[in-house]
Amino acid sequence: MNTKEELHDFIKNGHLHYLPHLAIDCAIFGYHNQKLKILLGKRSMQNGWSLPGGFFGKKESLSFAAARILKEQTGLDQVFLQQFYTFGDNEYRLKDKGDSLPKEFYEIYGEDNWLAKRTIAIGFYALVDFSKVKISPDLFFEEFQWFDFNEIPSLLYDHNDMIDKATKVLRQQLFHQPIGYNLLDEEFTLPEIQSLYETILNKSLDRRNFPKKLISHSIIKKLPKRRSIGPHRSPYLYSFDKENYYKALKEGIILVF
Amino acid sequence: MNTKEELHDFIKNGHLHYLPHLAIDCAIFGYHNQKLKILLGKRSMQNGWSLPGGFFGKKESLSFAAARILKEQTGLDQVFLQQFYTFGDNEYRLKDKGDSLPKEFYEIYGEDNWLAKRTIAIGFYALVDFSKVKISPDLFFEEFQWFDFNEIPSLLYDHNDMIDKATKVLRQQLFHQPIGYNLLDEEFTLPEIQSLYETILNKSLDRRNFPKKLISHSIIKKLPKRRSIGPHRSPYLYSFDKENYYKALKEGIILVF
Repeated sequence: MNTKEELHDFIKNGHLHYLPHLAIDCAIFGYHNQKLKILLGKRSMQNGWSLPGGFFGKKESLSFAAARILKEQTGLDQVFLQQFYTFGDNEYRLKDKGDSLPKEFYEIYGEDNWLAKRTIAIGFYALVDFSKVKISPDLFFEEFQWFDFNEIPSLLYDHNDMIDKATKVLRQQLFHQPIGYNLLDEEFTLPEIQSLYETILNKSLDRRNFPKKLISHSIIKKLPKRRSIGPHRSPYLYSFDKENYYKALKEGIILVF
Repeated sequence: MNTKEELHDFIKNGHLHYLPHLAIDCAIFGYHNQKLKILLGKRSMQNGWSLPGGFFGKKESLSFAAARILKEQTGLDQVFLQQFYTFGDNEYRLKDKGDSLPKEFYEIYGEDNWLAKRTIAIGFYALVDFSKVKISPDLFFEEFQWFDFNEIPSLLYDHNDMIDKATKVLRQQLFHQPIGYNLLDEEFTLPEIQSLYETILNKSLDRRNFPKKLISHSIIKKLPKRRSIGPHRSPYLYSFDKENYYKALKEGIILVF
């Protein structure tokens, strides 16, 4: 969707192709320079930041639609992408759009337009390789930008609530899903993995006990090489032992600190 | 909804009051005689068993609607009720109802009726006090019945998949939500709590280590009374120490076996 004509057609006739009352919003997490990041989009019509997202086709599965939207907006496919919650309780989600759309919208498309109706949003979260994302603005989003997880601005609609919920789910699933594996580079230092887990869990983990546990259960392994990060500072690199990591997640026993 | 006229009106005019393309289905778990149970309803129109459920009002929140439906069908309110997944991927969920509704439905209400359209289902699970449920058949469900969790029949639509997913979520949330507290009686024996956890986790837990861990962390406490279950058999009763139990869940550390 890249021209004004296409946008106009989408607003006017989208209800013929997409299910009404439903949207997909996506919390896209990346990790860079020891910081957890989240991708936000600046909406052109509403003039504010929100999660990326879109609608799903009348005959499209939820998972397929989420993957399609993610690919359209970030260029990525085959990423770790999971549904985490469906939002329909917030005050904003209980009624038609009203003031959250500009006056001109109603002047052009009428009160009865499908995009002006109440929307239930199905939230997905994605764990992506920060360096590989090629963001593609479209007419809905004039800009995409990575934000530090600790510096998320005030977002449109209930999207701050959505990120809170996604984070809670991420925190729980850290022990059941390959979160670390999908966010870290293939090779990482101990402070890097520790910092990721601390950010997601929002608590400090013991500097000795945390890596000791990972290593003693063979979840991560020391590589015969180091990263040079300054004079006299060249910590060893580690990588996941994928098989043991998945085994530990499946047993749900070991990754608890 | 208790008369044929009301049902007819609901099918014909429901789209004026309820959101189209969306349904709520509810996996209701209870625990009785050391067995995990699930409540199923026999649908009158489709002649088969399924999860209880219903639709949500155009201006109703998801949580409110789920609680309302649960109350209508079981008489219970204030129960532990949580959304667990939204279903829109299964082959049955990708298209309009087609053969899953009887021919007569289309003869009376037409192909274009709102109930004949593709439906995305939002799944909730409830943990209820088995003994307090007063099931109320209505025109959609001619009968409700508790089934042993290990003897679930073949259900309509994708409802067996729904129960599988609910069980997986229950398994994960056993360490984060007060599952045990909501399913067990206030006073229980050690074999009772062990059997509940084993059923949900679908694995055996060490007969010595499991209760030892619960007791040493003060999550459960021994009461000064016993249950008499036969000659020479009168095991001690236990109850949760609610404060310590919630603390353990919050810390996410202790309830891992």
